[in-house]
Amino acid sequence: MTLPNRNRQIVLAARPEGMPKESDFAVKDSPIPEPGPGELLVRAHYLSADPFQRMRFEAQANYGKVLQLGEVIRGRMVGEVVRSNNPGYKVGEFVEGMLNWQEYAISDGSTARAEYAPGIAKVDPAIAPIQYSLGVLGFPGVTAYFALFDCCEPKPGETVVVSSAAGAVGSLAGQLAKIQGCRVVGLASTKEKTDWITRDLGFDAAINYTKYDSSEALLGAIRAACPERINVFFDNTGGWIADGILPHLAKNARVVVVGNIVQNNRAVKEKRLDPNSYIMVNRATMRGFIVYDYEHRADEARHAIARWIKSGHIKVRETVAHGIENTPKAFISMLNGGNIGKQLIKLV
Amino acid sequence: MTLPNRNRQIVLAARPEGMPKESDFAVKDSPIPEPGPGELLVRAHYLSADPFQRMRFEAQANYGKVLQLGEVIRGRMVGEVVRSNNPGYKVGEFVEGMLNWQEYAISDGSTARAEYAPGIAKVDPAIAPIQYSLGVLGFPGVTAYFALFDCCEPKPGETVVVSSAAGAVGSLAGQLAKIQGCRVVGLASTKEKTDWITRDLGFDAAINYTKYDSSEALLGAIRAACPERINVFFDNTGGWIADGILPHLAKNARVVVVGNIVQNNRAVKEKRLDPNSYIMVNRATMRGFIVYDYEHRADEARHAIARWIKSGHIKVRETVAHGIENTPKAFISMLNGGNIGKQLIKLV
Repeated sequence: MTLPNRNRQIVLAARPEGMPKESDFAVKDSPIPEPGPGELLVRAHYLSADPFQRMRFEAQANYGKVLQLGEVIRGRMVGEVVRSNNPGYKVGEFVEGMLNWQEYAISDGSTARAEYAPGIAKVDPAIAPIQYSLGVLGFPGVTAYFALFDCCEPKPGETVVVSSAAGAVGSLAGQLAKIQGCRVVGLASTKEKTDWITRDLGFDAAINYTKYDSSEALLGAIRAACPERINVFFDNTGGWIADGILPHLAKNARVVVVGNIVQNNRAVKEKRLDPNSYIMVNRATMRGFIVYDYEHRADEARHAIARWIKSGHIKVRETVAHGIENTPKAFISMLNGGNIGKQLIKLV
Repeated sequence: MTLPNRNRQIVLAARPEGMPKESDFAVKDSPIPEPGPGELLVRAHYLSADPFQRMRFEAQANYGKVLQLGEVIRGRMVGEVVRSNNPGYKVGEFVEGMLNWQEYAISDGSTARAEYAPGIAKVDPAIAPIQYSLGVLGFPGVTAYFALFDCCEPKPGETVVVSSAAGAVGSLAGQLAKIQGCRVVGLASTKEKTDWITRDLGFDAAINYTKYDSSEALLGAIRAACPERINVFFDNTGGWIADGILPHLAKNARVVVVGNIVQNNRAVKEKRLDPNSYIMVNRATMRGFIVYDYEHRADEARHAIARWIKSGHIKVRETVAHGIENTPKAFISMLNGGNIGKQLIKLV
């Protein structure tokens, strides 16, 4: 196979203040690297745009390593092995991993997928479309599964509220809660999204939170949608949206903190309601979730989700941009809620 | 036994805005009630001043019933049975219960001690001073024991931070954490208190938080006192004090929210740090605690604490006011941190 003579990469050109701009990124041309002994070269078919990446752009360590200016943006990729000096991987096989926003990536074949590790996993295109490995069958799927079932233990009949409910994680979390027999209320930012989650995904109710200009106003809509209060809150956003939900928790409510996207995109972090005010009286539990802690159990989630996709209980939707040069735009669009379902960038 | 002809009671004269004033209370003379069939009359020896009472003064229900203007302040009492039409209680026996701030109280002898119930429990003066039933062997003791051991599961060598550490609950929580083999850091408001918890109670370090004028400044002292970060935070106060502690949580930290006294005494609630910022990345758990949920296990706590008092592992200190007319002053003093250990009002 003849390869082109350049590897286009997306690098950090400037540290974003608040919401990233396209000018915070640049396309860099590099030579395609040659795999060394034991290494393989992967050609990206899809890049993934995920909210967690935003945190890596801060100058102060949050979690994960701080990205330096000029460095290739860390992100996930699914692609095809095009050269291999590793007996474990054959040319033509597909792999997924933290191989960053570039057209070609070198891997040493390691499968360690902990917080800082770029380990890869094989992807079987006969089981599902390869890009599912970045979404429902990848970290977003594992996140939705364990953050909901392990951290929140929802029971049939309980009310579950999901923010960012039309996103990759939220749309799956809500469907999982429906499978569990819960009453599910989702928050999203457009009518197209609220229609999708109620009509196609079976959510019991949806709230377009952009209609409300304050936590207090949103809380009114939440009260109306959750007459028996909220037993489980799957929090993808934090910020004022979460503060429009948390005062309506039920006794013994469980809150899982999966994301903080409202705050991540603010240059000055907004102050929040006092958590003691809703935590103590309701005997609520609020727990932080990082998917890497569940990597050792990821197959449990993947197998369950794959079965439910096959049985029609879980529906998958993707928003796909094309061409590596459009990756920053797709990422920013995703941060602004422009996606429905998983945001991908298709390169091949 | 001849009784006086009046029962002095403390009633709510005005709804406090922020920190209560003495004029928010009034002393009311009532006739001493006559116990009906199955009832008993209790003469108060000690009244209890507890932070939870503050919440009952709000016009909006928080937890517990809303107190109406003119009503006797709900609060705990230990006293002697002086009349009894109930075969389960003899004159001369001691009982403890939610019998309110008054010199004489009627009880129907019920032992139900759930959230809204005024049920009483017998107190054996041969085991411990009767007023311990309001402190280390009463609800404060049960709170410290289960909020620490059940909600936080501290392990030997872990760092435990306790706010309001010289109060009835905090001083016990810190001593229990020491018994468990933890490194314990306490926050209190005077040098006398920080000296007491470090010299007499064995805390490893103490911080006088009144030396710091912001959460950020307090955080500097917390960082210095907790070089390996904080595994367990026993939060009695909430507010800016908690925000000076929470950013220094360790991975997998446990926070138990036992009180909210900083905010309870503010007419306008202050906004707080975004909990998602410290909960998610640290995979921390924040859990709300209400002691009534543990009433069915209270004897487990009382027996353990009584043994540790006997063995010298737990030291008890009280701040005692005298005379029912001084109850509001003692209560306000306690809210302002004027007490060391359990705040009591001795009537007999």
